[in-house]
Amino acid sequence: MANPVLVEVTRGAVVESAHRGAVSVFDADGKPVWEIGDTARPVFPRSAVKAIQALPLLESGAADAYGFGDRELALACASHSGEPAHVELAQAMLAKAGLDKTALECGAHWPSSHVATIAMARTGSAPNPLHNNCSGKHAGFLCTCVHSGIAHGGYVKAGHALQEMVRDAMQSVTGAAHDVDHCGTDGCSIPTYAVPLKSFALGFARMATGRGFAPERAKAAKRLLSACMAEPFLVAGTGKADLALMRAAPGRIFVKTGAEGVYCAALPEHGLGIALKCDDGASRASEVMIAAVLAKLLRSDEALAAKLAELANPPVESRIGAKVGLLRPTAALA
Amino acid sequence: MANPVLVEVTRGAVVESAHRGAVSVFDADGKPVWEIGDTARPVFPRSAVKAIQALPLLESGAADAYGFGDRELALACASHSGEPAHVELAQAMLAKAGLDKTALECGAHWPSSHVATIAMARTGSAPNPLHNNCSGKHAGFLCTCVHSGIAHGGYVKAGHALQEMVRDAMQSVTGAAHDVDHCGTDGCSIPTYAVPLKSFALGFARMATGRGFAPERAKAAKRLLSACMAEPFLVAGTGKADLALMRAAPGRIFVKTGAEGVYCAALPEHGLGIALKCDDGASRASEVMIAAVLAKLLRSDEALAAKLAELANPPVESRIGAKVGLLRPTAALA
Repeated sequence: MANPVLVEVTRGAVVESAHRGAVSVFDADGKPVWEIGDTARPVFPRSAVKAIQALPLLESGAADAYGFGDRELALACASHSGEPAHVELAQAMLAKAGLDKTALECGAHWPSSHVATIAMARTGSAPNPLHNNCSGKHAGFLCTCVHSGIAHGGYVKAGHALQEMVRDAMQSVTGAAHDVDHCGTDGCSIPTYAVPLKSFALGFARMATGRGFAPERAKAAKRLLSACMAEPFLVAGTGKADLALMRAAPGRIFVKTGAEGVYCAALPEHGLGIALKCDDGASRASEVMIAAVLAKLLRSDEALAAKLAELANPPVESRIGAKVGLLRPTAALA
Repeated sequence: MANPVLVEVTRGAVVESAHRGAVSVFDADGKPVWEIGDTARPVFPRSAVKAIQALPLLESGAADAYGFGDRELALACASHSGEPAHVELAQAMLAKAGLDKTALECGAHWPSSHVATIAMARTGSAPNPLHNNCSGKHAGFLCTCVHSGIAHGGYVKAGHALQEMVRDAMQSVTGAAHDVDHCGTDGCSIPTYAVPLKSFALGFARMATGRGFAPERAKAAKRLLSACMAEPFLVAGTGKADLALMRAAPGRIFVKTGAEGVYCAALPEHGLGIALKCDDGASRASEVMIAAVLAKLLRSDEALAAKLAELANPPVESRIGAKVGLLRPTAALA
């Protein structure tokens, strides 16, 4: 059965396009709190689980050995927009481990920030792997390798000791087996595993509360989510939805987008984890979905819910900046 | 009822995302040849109908008065990528009517060609309305105004004499009423009207054959489609799907993309018109859909069908250029 339409795109009085999806909200005891659509279908979480993938950076002792604080931990969990602050910090993290950009195996691309791209082109420069939106995560991977005495060459490949550490963390946190039949290659060349959407909701409820974790992991998980909430610009970038959502309620909302329409989130004060995917992979729709879900879960704070509802109804604009339509959540999300 | 899934996006062995849609193929006598999903639902055609919107440019006599050939007519029907050849020709068209870029009311945006954007930024320049993907269409509109003695100020607005000429052409060709309740504003500020998808399929069967048209309109329609097929680079740009599809069979395939996942197409030798829309508005999916539909309709030409099938199965690549998945049409399109 098709998942329900969760977001409509209007133009004038007409619904022009529509996005379907599934949403799962869990508490840390494994109780489903709110579910829409098929949440048992395996989905690739892509970049939405970078905070879980960063656990080995802390648990190996690398982060402390290199003196990483909120800024570096936030960047290790980031899909950043390649602005100068992101690029410089990724480079500084690598330098702590005695490495530079040549160690990165993520590939290069122009910054996802159009402004940063134009600024770079104006100076005649070209992108290198530090501009890759995943360079902070990869810098964290490389620091973990060096501190742990693992040869870092090929650290992106399934089966490499670093990726096994990451997979162990992912399996343990989500409670879902990460098997070879459901393994794909992410845009930055690391393995990504498709598991049921609801496993990520449960995983982020655990990340936010530490419930069910050994004390060391509970501490690491809280430190990572706190770092992201303290430094949301480093997790995302200028104009990004993650930045707007985390800034809407500092320290109370953790969100992380992933490619192909995925979002993971956590509400520490409520002990809830959230995972959603837009069926067709559209980020514009997953951004509306997560804002609408958060607005509902946080509705007791009316001012915050109003701000989130605004983010859940972004305008569609013409090239001269006139509002000609909007995106809006459907009744299924209300 | 939901439209069927027409395109899957895979990563490894897993279907990561999916796109639904509707397809309509008509002959010029109004007979449906192939229909998938709800083809009666009103959809905005957006830029996919620029060839119909260019009829007044020919029928007013403006195109001949200004000496426009295939190149200018193709650009008048284009969603171009803002490369130098597009920009220069749009400027030249305006100059024929004694105008320049200041007359354009479409708004400015950076070229949709990333290469053109980087090249412009490197020289320190910024986009103006000539870089707007619709500048050729707007140049055609302005030429029609000037030649017809219509004051061109506000030519983008519903109710302006030029837009009434365009609406008359659209209604007459598609046979569908274009009413105010289904009017939206397009990205380039002109009105766009939502009418049943199947009306566009019928309209393009008529455009390709001239059947049901007065001789003057039949001639104009054929001239426009011929111009686009002769100059596909000017209709689109480097690396664009429309260019690849029209180059696959010169003079035999007319295609035109529109925003939010729309395609219109015509096969003159078969007397068929095609219209489709991806429900969620994704161009990556509508490009696969149109290639798959053309591969099926043209299957008697095995070499061409193989080329089209290749275009219907584009790879998904990582940032280092490794193939990590693909887009593919589902059995519904086979």
